[in-house]
Amino acid sequence: MMKREKGPRIRKVPAGDNRDRLVCPDCDYVAYENPKVVVGVVATWESRILMCKRAIEPRRGHWTLPAGFMEVGESPEQGAAREAWEEARAQLEIIDLLALYSLRHISQLQLFYRARLLSPDVSAGPESEEVGLFDFDRLPAAELAFPSVHWAIQHFQQVQGADAFPPFGNPPGGRGEMHGGSHSV
Amino acid sequence: MMKREKGPRIRKVPAGDNRDRLVCPDCDYVAYENPKVVVGVVATWESRILMCKRAIEPRRGHWTLPAGFMEVGESPEQGAAREAWEEARAQLEIIDLLALYSLRHISQLQLFYRARLLSPDVSAGPESEEVGLFDFDRLPAAELAFPSVHWAIQHFQQVQGADAFPPFGNPPGGRGEMHGGSHSV
Repeated sequence: MMKREKGPRIRKVPAGDNRDRLVCPDCDYVAYENPKVVVGVVATWESRILMCKRAIEPRRGHWTLPAGFMEVGESPEQGAAREAWEEARAQLEIIDLLALYSLRHISQLQLFYRARLLSPDVSAGPESEEVGLFDFDRLPAAELAFPSVHWAIQHFQQVQGADAFPPFGNPPGGRGEMHGGSHSV
Repeated sequence: MMKREKGPRIRKVPAGDNRDRLVCPDCDYVAYENPKVVVGVVATWESRILMCKRAIEPRRGHWTLPAGFMEVGESPEQGAAREAWEEARAQLEIIDLLALYSLRHISQLQLFYRARLLSPDVSAGPESEEVGLFDFDRLPAAELAFPSVHWAIQHFQQVQGADAFPPFGNPPGGRGEMHGGSHSV
């Protein structure tokens, strides 16, 4: 990675704070780095699940669930629905919170919701090469983009038919790191 | 508020993006603004609940639950336990996720966990004037700092004795805004 020569690029403890922050040495702007929230959906039409083939890095060409960074001014449910529209032109109704995963190595908190598609008419948005509705026994399991996609699908299957449950967390020992490009948990 | 004369201070759509971002006109640094995660606890010793009187603004002198911004590199549970230590020198065990509130007007996602204090020995950290363990019928209800503190306590009472439930969300109509300094929902 190239060293930044402009903008926040040095680490120091700002006055009144108690930890290192990323600071611009030219103007003292402090770029607070907080964990980011990723919101996504396990959305189904009848018993088929909506997935997107990524058109962008990382993991271009691999399959994922519609998900992305929550933006300011929206609720997590709104963000999850927005991502499904942006990536798969999907319209849906959020049902409930399926899982809350903590990916500490990349400072992400990922929230996956269960959702019901309002129509099977889906199509690739700009960040997807292709989208599809898959039966559970025909998922592109060997080509999943991220460990948490794998987790969310497994957790979804565990609560089919259930209508009130605590959200899942990371599977035991699961930190969500990528291992040589595989989707191992 | 004074107009910033340095650092990210203009709004424009960066190349390859699709929404306005806060940009530094001097060096093109983009300060992405994402919702921040606040993590907190409803922690009890026997049937008494831990609360802190705020020593800092906003809402100095009002009572709150231990809570604060999640930091990079920690899980939400670790963040909630850290805040309880920083604000009330409390040691505790996290039980489960009580609630997930969306405060869109301040771009916060607040997670409150139920927790069990490991000892009744608590004391004010640097951000608290005072800390206390309160019986439910003796809470400083008229002096609560924020609407979501009120919500979390009410939701906690609703699930006493329950051991597996979906987390609460905002109460109906509750957006978490302050109204003239009161804690109305």
